[in-house]
Amino acid sequence: MNRIMRDEKMVKQGLEDKYPSRIEDKPVVMKREDDVLYSEWTEKSPLSKEQSDFYEKNGFLVLDRFFSEMELSEWRTELKRLNEKYREEEAEHVILEPESREVRSVFAVHENNEKFKQLAAHPKLAAIANYLLGSDTYIHQSRINFKPGFTGKEFYWHSDFETWHVEDGMPSMRAFSCSIALEDNFQHNGPLMVIPGSHKKFISCIGKTPDNHFKQSLRRQEYGVPDPHSLEMLNKEGGIHTITGKAGSIVLFDCNTMHGSNSNITPDPRSNVFLVYNSTENKLQQPYSGQKPRPRYIASRE
Amino acid sequence: MNRIMRDEKMVKQGLEDKYPSRIEDKPVVMKREDDVLYSEWTEKSPLSKEQSDFYEKNGFLVLDRFFSEMELSEWRTELKRLNEKYREEEAEHVILEPESREVRSVFAVHENNEKFKQLAAHPKLAAIANYLLGSDTYIHQSRINFKPGFTGKEFYWHSDFETWHVEDGMPSMRAFSCSIALEDNFQHNGPLMVIPGSHKKFISCIGKTPDNHFKQSLRRQEYGVPDPHSLEMLNKEGGIHTITGKAGSIVLFDCNTMHGSNSNITPDPRSNVFLVYNSTENKLQQPYSGQKPRPRYIASRE
Repeated sequence: MNRIMRDEKMVKQGLEDKYPSRIEDKPVVMKREDDVLYSEWTEKSPLSKEQSDFYEKNGFLVLDRFFSEMELSEWRTELKRLNEKYREEEAEHVILEPESREVRSVFAVHENNEKFKQLAAHPKLAAIANYLLGSDTYIHQSRINFKPGFTGKEFYWHSDFETWHVEDGMPSMRAFSCSIALEDNFQHNGPLMVIPGSHKKFISCIGKTPDNHFKQSLRRQEYGVPDPHSLEMLNKEGGIHTITGKAGSIVLFDCNTMHGSNSNITPDPRSNVFLVYNSTENKLQQPYSGQKPRPRYIASRE
Repeated sequence: MNRIMRDEKMVKQGLEDKYPSRIEDKPVVMKREDDVLYSEWTEKSPLSKEQSDFYEKNGFLVLDRFFSEMELSEWRTELKRLNEKYREEEAEHVILEPESREVRSVFAVHENNEKFKQLAAHPKLAAIANYLLGSDTYIHQSRINFKPGFTGKEFYWHSDFETWHVEDGMPSMRAFSCSIALEDNFQHNGPLMVIPGSHKKFISCIGKTPDNHFKQSLRRQEYGVPDPHSLEMLNKEGGIHTITGKAGSIVLFDCNTMHGSNSNITPDPRSNVFLVYNSTENKLQQPYSGQKPRPRYIASRE
C-alpha cells in the first residue's frame, strides 16, 4: 500500500497518524505530542515527587527491592518449568533465540499462566499504572524474556511505541513497560540500556514492514529499527544509562524510551518479566501500517 | 586422524602434548604445568612488585594511560584508513563481522603496516614482554579488532592458548597478549571480560577441528570453545571482571586466561590493537591437531 492509499484509508476510519513511521525513505525526528505523566502529583500518589519528576524527565525509573525474595522464588520456579516445557514443545506464543533452540520469550503470561496473571494484577503495580497513565489501565502485552546465559542475544535499540503504533495501532504515547528482574542484573549479563530523555522525541524508521514478519522480528528485529545517525544524536544528548540491580527490582519505562541490550555470553542468565500497561483511553485502532493486526498474544485488543 | 594415529605421529616428531584438547568426548580440567611469570622480580623490572604479583595471581594486568593522546591519534587515523580500505576490498588477512560487511579484524599489522610495526616494537612493551616471559620474544600474532558501533558481535569465551596449541602448535604456556585500547572502553560497548585465576587451569575442549575452518572461526568461534559446565566452575571460583578504561590504557593477559566480550549495539566503537608476544624458547611445532598449520598472517612461524 502506498502512502496516499494508506492516508485515504485512515481518513475513512477517522484516524489521524501523529507519528508516521516506515513510510518515508529518510528518518524524521519529531517532537513528542503527548504527555509523559498523566496525573498531577499529590501526597497520595504511589511514587514520591522525586521519583515522579525523574520518570517524567528521563523516561524511566528504577525501584529497588520492589518484590520480596519469597515472591521471586515462586516466579523463578515457574520460569524454570516454562523453560523446560517449551524447549521440548513448540507453541505459537513462544519465541526461540535466533541461533539456538533456547527459549527467548514466552508471551501473554498474564493470560495463560496463573502465577503471572496474579503478578500482572498486583495492586502495587496497578496503582502506579493508574497514576502514570491517569486512567484505568489494562495489559497490552506481557512476556517473559529469558536472556539465557552463554547464548542470550542482543535486543537492538528500539522504541516500543514505534512498533505498537505501526504494527498494533496504538494511537498515542500513553503506555509504559514494567520490567521485573528475576535475577541479578550485572553490567556483564546483557542488562537493559536506556537513553535518558529519548522518550521526548519520536524517531521515524525507514522501510516498509513485510506482511506477517512478527515471528521473525521477535527473534531478531529488522524493521522498526532506528537509523545510526538518529541514535548517535540521542546518545550525544542523553548518553547511555545501564540499569543494574538486584533481583526483585523493577524498571518502569515510557513506551517511547529508546532502549536495547547487548548479548549475554556469561553463565549468569538475566530473566525478567515484562508487563506493558496501556491506558483504557488509548485503545488500539487498526495498525497504522494499513496491515492486518498482530495476533492477540502479542497485542491485546480488548 | 584418530587419537592413536595422532599420538604415534607426535612421538615420531619427539613432541609431547602437555595439554591435549579436541580429542576426547568429554571436557577435562587440567592443572597448568607451566610458570606464569618467567622472571624473578627485581627493582629494575619494568613492572612494580604489586603489578607483577597481581599478574601472576590473576592472569591479567591493566596499565592506565600507557600511551599518550598523540600516539593514539596517529593510530586511530591509520585505523580509520584501514577500515575504509577494507570495506571496499577483500584481503585474506581481513575478517568481516559474521552478519555484516563491517570489518571485524585486520591481522598481521606488525608486518604489513608501518605504523603498527613501530608500535609492536615499542621498547616499553618489549621490556615488559622480556620480563614476563623471561627470554627474548617475538610477535606470534597481531591484529586490530574494530568492534564497530551498532553491529559489533561478541567474542565467545576462550583461552587463546587452547587454539594456539591445537591449531598452531604452541608447546607451552609462555606467551601473553597485550590489548591496546584505541577508544574508551565503557561497560556498555562490549568491553573485555576476564575470569581472574582461570589461567591456572587448562580446560580441554571437545569436538575435532575441521580442516581449514580458521576463516570461519575468526568470524564466529565454534571449535575450541569451552563447555558451559567448566565456565560455570571458573566463574564460581574467580567471578567475571570487566575491563573498562580510557583510550591509551593497555591490558596484559596470559595466553591461558579465559576471556570474551559481549556484542556492541551502542554507537561507541571499541577498537583495539592486539599484540601477542611469544618466547623465542616456545617456538611453534607442528599443530597438535595433526592438521596443517594455519597461515602465517595468523601465526608467525619464525
